[in-house]
Amino acid sequence: MKRVKLTVAYDGTNYCGWQIQPNGLTIEEVLNKALYRLTGEKIAVIGASRTDSGVHALGNIAVFDTDSPIPAQRFSYALNQQLPEDIVIVRSEETSSEWHPRYCNSRKTYEYHILNAKVPNPIKRQTTYFVSYPLNLEDMQKAASYLVGEHDFVSFCNIRTNVENTVRTIYDLQILRKEDEIILRITGNGFLYNMVRIIVGTLLRVGRGFYTPKQVKEILEAQNRNTAGITVPPQGLILTEICYL
Amino acid sequence: MKRVKLTVAYDGTNYCGWQIQPNGLTIEEVLNKALYRLTGEKIAVIGASRTDSGVHALGNIAVFDTDSPIPAQRFSYALNQQLPEDIVIVRSEETSSEWHPRYCNSRKTYEYHILNAKVPNPIKRQTTYFVSYPLNLEDMQKAASYLVGEHDFVSFCNIRTNVENTVRTIYDLQILRKEDEIILRITGNGFLYNMVRIIVGTLLRVGRGFYTPKQVKEILEAQNRNTAGITVPPQGLILTEICYL
Repeated sequence: MKRVKLTVAYDGTNYCGWQIQPNGLTIEEVLNKALYRLTGEKIAVIGASRTDSGVHALGNIAVFDTDSPIPAQRFSYALNQQLPEDIVIVRSEETSSEWHPRYCNSRKTYEYHILNAKVPNPIKRQTTYFVSYPLNLEDMQKAASYLVGEHDFVSFCNIRTNVENTVRTIYDLQILRKEDEIILRITGNGFLYNMVRIIVGTLLRVGRGFYTPKQVKEILEAQNRNTAGITVPPQGLILTEICYL
Repeated sequence: MKRVKLTVAYDGTNYCGWQIQPNGLTIEEVLNKALYRLTGEKIAVIGASRTDSGVHALGNIAVFDTDSPIPAQRFSYALNQQLPEDIVIVRSEETSSEWHPRYCNSRKTYEYHILNAKVPNPIKRQTTYFVSYPLNLEDMQKAASYLVGEHDFVSFCNIRTNVENTVRTIYDLQILRKEDEIILRITGNGFLYNMVRIIVGTLLRVGRGFYTPKQVKEILEAQNRNTAGITVPPQGLILTEICYL
């Protein structure tokens, strides 16, 4: 028996997110079925990040145990033959039998891509959120600086969650313009349900001039979801990397 | 009666190209049907570039004549309400009643995007051609320089074509690296069937070291399709702009 760690990339457009659910196809289900075809074992992978419907990943992590004679490093190649082209195993490697992708300290990095242009771009419709109004990048960057550090992020958390501890640490939060896109890149020790998308929705209100940068600090301190901006749609979000410490 | 000129952007993934055909949905057909719903007139648009199945566009051009009271500039907004989200009218404007998008001199610009990385990126699978081997960019650029200018491009033309004149002028051909992509940007007064994709297939053989840059000059002079490289797949190709002189 060995434990295998997968780095998984996917286009989330055609999936109901990572986690298995009765009413739609998920990444987890497709991986489990591909592993069954490959090994004949009923494997249930454990994912690091249960991304939402429509969210993409370049570096999600999953583990599973197997008695298969396939070497751990060969699983990436073997699985990619079984997977649809919108899911790719970037890397596979053996890991220790106790290692768990959710119970180990990690830094996760997400990117959110905003297409800031006069007209929508159909080629980018599944990977960006289209915003036609002008955005004040400096104000957004100033507002973002209030969110870096250890805070209670309950104001930036979907109210349908029931985690006990809403304190998280954001190590880095950058906002940059690249051609017609504005990219928000955020690294933290973990994120609450919809947290990145609510942060983006709030910073967009700053960029548009509806909130001052300082108000984001007040929203954080208010500890009330209703004070923050909307949850922006999923297709602009990419889980780019999970770095275990 | 007025003639309206449309600038059309589309994600070609789900279409059998621009031109109406019996066995699959095309951009032209979707535009005609949207115009019918909008005006009640049986309109047949005339496109500047009949892009192939799977090819994308940011700036294809189409014209049509109409008696509709809708002002020419408003057609972009009105049509976008009728169109699926993978086709977008970027601009609409009135043009003279004799103006024809294929019989006027123009400069067309295409981009071809190559994902040059160790593993495929599922998020870019519909907009890039994945090439995992290392590419010598300088050699590719040197080879490309032989193609600039007025030449008979019959070596770079699909043999199933039957145009009489295979002489075209390439004004500019640039190859640049941008993160994990290599982008070829080509501007010419017109392109033969599959010409851009065969040029890319040939330059990739140079980048891989199978051809010297000088051999591309010989391929051009040979006037024989069999000497050139493969026709690379359509999804990396974008018609970015058509500029009328």
